[in-house]
Amino acid sequence: MRKEATVLRPSNNGNRYELVSPTAMPKAGGFLWNQKMMIQITCRGLPRHNSCSRSPQKQNYYAHHPGRFVYIKDLETGQLFSAPHEPVRATPDRFVFSVGKSDVAWAVEHMGIRVEMVMGLPTNDVAELWTIKVTNISGRPRRISVTPYFPFGYMSWMNQSAEWNPDLVGVIASCVTPYQKAAEYFKNKYLKDKSYFLCETRPDSWEASQQAFEGEGGLHNPSALQEPQLGGSDARYETPTAAVQYRLALGAGEEREYRFMFGPAYDEAEIRSMRSRFLSKEAFVKTADEYAAYMARGSGCLRIETPDKELDNFVNNWLPRQVYYHGDVNRLTTDPQTRNYLQDNMGMNYIKPEVSRKAFIKALSQQEANGAMPDGILLAEGAELKYINQIPHTDHCVWLPVTLDVYLGETGDYGLLKERVRTENGDNFTVFERFSAALDFLLNLRDERGLSYIAQGDWCDPMNMVGYKGKGVSGWLTLATAYAVNLWADVCEHEGAHDLAKRFRAGAQDCNAAANKHLWDGDWFARGITDDNVTFGIKKDPEGRIWLNPQTFAILGGAANKQQIARILPQVDSQLTTPYGVLMFAPPFTKMREDIGRVTQKAIGSAENGAVYNHAGVFYIYSLYSLGGQQDRAYTHLRQLIPGPSEADYRQRGQLPIYIPNYYRGGWREFPRTAGRSSQLFNTGTVSWAYRCVIEGLCGLRGDAEGLVIRPQLPSSWDAIKVTREFRGATFHLDIRRADVRDVTVKLGEKVLPEPRITGFKAGETYHLSVLVPQ
Amino acid sequence: MRKEATVLRPSNNGNRYELVSPTAMPKAGGFLWNQKMMIQITCRGLPRHNSCSRSPQKQNYYAHHPGRFVYIKDLETGQLFSAPHEPVRATPDRFVFSVGKSDVAWAVEHMGIRVEMVMGLPTNDVAELWTIKVTNISGRPRRISVTPYFPFGYMSWMNQSAEWNPDLVGVIASCVTPYQKAAEYFKNKYLKDKSYFLCETRPDSWEASQQAFEGEGGLHNPSALQEPQLGGSDARYETPTAAVQYRLALGAGEEREYRFMFGPAYDEAEIRSMRSRFLSKEAFVKTADEYAAYMARGSGCLRIETPDKELDNFVNNWLPRQVYYHGDVNRLTTDPQTRNYLQDNMGMNYIKPEVSRKAFIKALSQQEANGAMPDGILLAEGAELKYINQIPHTDHCVWLPVTLDVYLGETGDYGLLKERVRTENGDNFTVFERFSAALDFLLNLRDERGLSYIAQGDWCDPMNMVGYKGKGVSGWLTLATAYAVNLWADVCEHEGAHDLAKRFRAGAQDCNAAANKHLWDGDWFARGITDDNVTFGIKKDPEGRIWLNPQTFAILGGAANKQQIARILPQVDSQLTTPYGVLMFAPPFTKMREDIGRVTQKAIGSAENGAVYNHAGVFYIYSLYSLGGQQDRAYTHLRQLIPGPSEADYRQRGQLPIYIPNYYRGGWREFPRTAGRSSQLFNTGTVSWAYRCVIEGLCGLRGDAEGLVIRPQLPSSWDAIKVTREFRGATFHLDIRRADVRDVTVKLGEKVLPEPRITGFKAGETYHLSVLVPQ
Repeated sequence: MRKEATVLRPSNNGNRYELVSPTAMPKAGGFLWNQKMMIQITCRGLPRHNSCSRSPQKQNYYAHHPGRFVYIKDLETGQLFSAPHEPVRATPDRFVFSVGKSDVAWAVEHMGIRVEMVMGLPTNDVAELWTIKVTNISGRPRRISVTPYFPFGYMSWMNQSAEWNPDLVGVIASCVTPYQKAAEYFKNKYLKDKSYFLCETRPDSWEASQQAFEGEGGLHNPSALQEPQLGGSDARYETPTAAVQYRLALGAGEEREYRFMFGPAYDEAEIRSMRSRFLSKEAFVKTADEYAAYMARGSGCLRIETPDKELDNFVNNWLPRQVYYHGDVNRLTTDPQTRNYLQDNMGMNYIKPEVSRKAFIKALSQQEANGAMPDGILLAEGAELKYINQIPHTDHCVWLPVTLDVYLGETGDYGLLKERVRTENGDNFTVFERFSAALDFLLNLRDERGLSYIAQGDWCDPMNMVGYKGKGVSGWLTLATAYAVNLWADVCEHEGAHDLAKRFRAGAQDCNAAANKHLWDGDWFARGITDDNVTFGIKKDPEGRIWLNPQTFAILGGAANKQQIARILPQVDSQLTTPYGVLMFAPPFTKMREDIGRVTQKAIGSAENGAVYNHAGVFYIYSLYSLGGQQDRAYTHLRQLIPGPSEADYRQRGQLPIYIPNYYRGGWREFPRTAGRSSQLFNTGTVSWAYRCVIEGLCGLRGDAEGLVIRPQLPSSWDAIKVTREFRGATFHLDIRRADVRDVTVKLGEKVLPEPRITGFKAGETYHLSVLVPQ
Repeated sequence: MRKEATVLRPSNNGNRYELVSPTAMPKAGGFLWNQKMMIQITCRGLPRHNSCSRSPQKQNYYAHHPGRFVYIKDLETGQLFSAPHEPVRATPDRFVFSVGKSDVAWAVEHMGIRVEMVMGLPTNDVAELWTIKVTNISGRPRRISVTPYFPFGYMSWMNQSAEWNPDLVGVIASCVTPYQKAAEYFKNKYLKDKSYFLCETRPDSWEASQQAFEGEGGLHNPSALQEPQLGGSDARYETPTAAVQYRLALGAGEEREYRFMFGPAYDEAEIRSMRSRFLSKEAFVKTADEYAAYMARGSGCLRIETPDKELDNFVNNWLPRQVYYHGDVNRLTTDPQTRNYLQDNMGMNYIKPEVSRKAFIKALSQQEANGAMPDGILLAEGAELKYINQIPHTDHCVWLPVTLDVYLGETGDYGLLKERVRTENGDNFTVFERFSAALDFLLNLRDERGLSYIAQGDWCDPMNMVGYKGKGVSGWLTLATAYAVNLWADVCEHEGAHDLAKRFRAGAQDCNAAANKHLWDGDWFARGITDDNVTFGIKKDPEGRIWLNPQTFAILGGAANKQQIARILPQVDSQLTTPYGVLMFAPPFTKMREDIGRVTQKAIGSAENGAVYNHAGVFYIYSLYSLGGQQDRAYTHLRQLIPGPSEADYRQRGQLPIYIPNYYRGGWREFPRTAGRSSQLFNTGTVSWAYRCVIEGLCGLRGDAEGLVIRPQLPSSWDAIKVTREFRGATFHLDIRRADVRDVTVKLGEKVLPEPRITGFKAGETYHLSVLVPQ
């Protein structure tokens, strides 16, 4: 393969990333979302995901044959190419794929024609807004055809059709979502079973039949483009498509701009309304402004200037955006897993803490009478637990105090604990009482040895057969229970419930003692014990020998003492560390181990089997920051969450540095060709923790009941950073630099604070702090 | 489009059909099956279906990216084409797609190279056996590469990989079928999660990664073929493929033959075993012979020579083959719908009646205590009712006497009625008692008006909302109940149970009286009455005005008297008859009618919404034959079941005349472009009835308790036919011709039989009968 020069570049102060090759990272893409939809689209014009299950949309409405393309044909020579790249795949003279926070854009030049494409979204509606501009850059007059091609894909075996609608000026496709039971009909009837492709400017011809468009020529050279105009066929129980054609004569330098809308709708009236609301130049501008304002509301509470410009870009622009996505739309599901719901809302503390507060109330309102938390939180009327949420997992209560910790730190709002929450079963308890009940439930969910049952799975490592018979236990959950219960005991103390605090601390100690007795393997903690009493994740296991999560939570929860930690960290370094992050476990499984289950069936390097699973990795980073004195290890791994900065790393991972994926492929030793590749999936609990690591760990800016503690943990190679932190309504500008001090020293103006902690500040005010940290 | 000359031709005495264009009927294909698998493959090399749910196979193992292709590249000029047609789609110099009963074959000539491909199956194993022969017909030495390309498709998000295995000489792909609940694992673990493509001859190079093979070139010009050899990459959590390459120097006229196997397996040991059993020239020959012998066992009980040669070909070669498929493998499902199971086995009476006998016992062994038949019959250990079988339908008991009628006619085996059948609930009744209980259940399943409840559906017209509240009734089922009960009363008479016969006849009369009172609309019978008491399928309905099935069963069951029949038939002619057969109903629905339900949501021209649904049509034909005096109407519609004979008809339907599809698209008035198109689905209850219509109706050769009745119903345009009929072990050669007789006159040798009925014949003997029918 030809080595290309630098293919990726930040622009607009890191607010955008540009990729100048369609082949170097073919799966790299951008993503946009709003309250009702999300779309990921690759540099080659292939959308990869769309999800909007919280409203009566048609899900995956272009699941089968997706693409957003425009064909350009020279009517004199017959030459053809397509922008952005697919399906013709011609080598462009110039290519720029440009991902912004509120749009995705391309500029492609070939055959003396420049095609510029921009995709935007409305803020509150489901539709894609496309601008396609064509410019003659050849310096001579040209005759070309411009043919946007937006296939709807296979829509339904039950009913699918499409036709040109002259009044709506677009192709309208219709289908019926299949179902079996009569009751399902009443759910399906409000689905948006129509899809539309609307043109602001009436085209010269059109095509609604996929087969008629493609013909024998194939998509790289569609038969329809070999004719003087598109055939205008409808699709009847055939695969529908939308292709429209404009025939142009362009003088040298002349350009033409078109606007289109693509989306689902319930009926023609809705399409008509969408058209009138959005499909004009003025409306596009207004909508883009509104959308940019919506994005700006998620800009987070932190700005940094460090020696690592890519980290700055990521933390200042992209990480809070991803945190905002998770917290604002809850992955667009109606029944988020409880642990995801709580952690996604944990991130919202840094953006809109009032949202996080409501999330606690919502989650607790679905607590069971015995204190247990359900596997998922139902967000909408009529929602139900689906897929993985029907599989019993035992860890959900852990996440209550873990995420409350951030809420209290960020807001100091202990008043939340006094709120009463009523459940459907009629119970009416305070938040405080509900947390206590949840943690009692968690402590009770242990066997006679004091180890926590795993049932069909716990967090992050979906081993479904360790404990499906009801006996197997989770090392991680035992250790995480101690962490959660200790955190809660701190809150109990704060609230003056000292006896309760004492009881909980004793419970945590009991967990830790049990873990140490049954799971400490000399240099690390085991992952669990199966139904048949086989301890796994230990030295003698040739595969799955050491697991990351138990070590992390032994550090966080206090099970590991200093000597043990000194043994654990080098093992993580040597066995789990890779250039792409810390592995969830190693070595990966090569064959099924029936007593452990599904994780061992995943492909090596997949999310679970020996991959860099970032959600696990970021907890390890958090635990390193919580330890103190581990700032270099922590920074190294934090940095690995983001692709780059080297060109080789970008290419290997195949992703733009605009989000943290849920995992990077593993098999670093076994399959180096594919190790490090991004999953391209950005739904992940990782992001709120990554933001927390930067804020609390790297910058060391964590709230307590009265103020803001300042304990930066700069990597040893850094001399200074600048930070702006929004906190409880005030703005803090921190100039942090190394100095010959013994402890962190904070000056406000000329006044040295008695401890590295600022209290008594006022919302609305701005404070300039000078922070000195030991060398 | 260029008009092509005749594109379809029968060969080998109608045993094969040849299509000489890959574009005239792009979806037309052949199909093969055995006890464990079925494959349909189009003339362009695209397999369309594979089903083997009765054994622990991997289902749909090439669902996502199917194809069986071979690329031929001229190594001197760089020119490329692919056989049979996809993905390059070059215009061939010569093309023959040839469908036989036990193989599917192609011969494609282009660039001076002939490629011959043959696909066969083993009789008892799941695998495709491919022969690919390449011949240099250019008259000069050539250097070419031959690259078979058999993509596995996207196999699993949980685990997929592929690699070259030098010992097995092939590409082996592996995956893990995803699942959620631990219990599912124990079902999934025996799935054949490996797929293989094995080469008899070691290739020069290979490729296991789809992306590496296709590259930027695309499938019409794969990047891998632009290199001197295939790259040999593996696929790791990437889409697997199998491509292998041979580089050849061929002298003028020289040829090279290769053999390959493609299929699923549980493990490498199984692959090794399959290779050693099948992958050699000798084994291919032996396997093909065995398979042809297997097919020959399904050759049926009838040979005809008529003026209609296409009908002869179809009835002598293809129809019994399709009947055999249905009866021998029960559509390869583990839980066939009860009505399908009984009707598919009805056809087996003409091939292997002992199979039909066992099917009655099997079905009745699952009868419920109240006499009801379940929605599906479980054929295998661990099978369960799935999909449509979880939706309550009310018609299953109808099919017991309707199909028994054929068994008794074909075998005279009234002894079956005395067999005892035990169910799981411990009941132990005779077949006779069970039939009586089923028909009592059916008679009881009626409302206070005497009309049969429809619940969420009955046969053939899946209207799921007529009666989902528990009140709506089915006109068809009321009339079909009368038909079924009358048939059973005949059997009761034969068995001497006269009181029972009388009681059942009274029940049938009650059904018919109720239907006449509530459903007769002046010129036809209504289709039903909804939960909210709306009668539908009547004159004032602008859509769904007249339905075929109620009329058919009013004729069969006696509800319609002669005057009514004289009113009904012209209405069917004028409202339901099309060039492609009789519509299930008309006019088609253009929008949802909520009180009727799902049928109205199907696309116009789909299976249910206004299509020629052959299963309904063939019953109408049967009813016409049962009436007598309708031989021209009956023949016209019988003939429409088979595509052709005109070229235009073949092309419009897009199907070879080798099977009856479940439907032809309707919308004949609304959407003439697509009307008549074959569904390409050959799972259909139509076929046993079509065979019955030919045997009992057209040829008039139906058994009774003692012998064979002879009442041919030749269309008026025919003067004579010859028939060979196997019946109860004897062979009858009938020479049937028109003569100046008043009734059918049969001569055995020189002796005129006293009535058109032969008794006292002997198994193993051959009889020559001369039959004269009135002019």
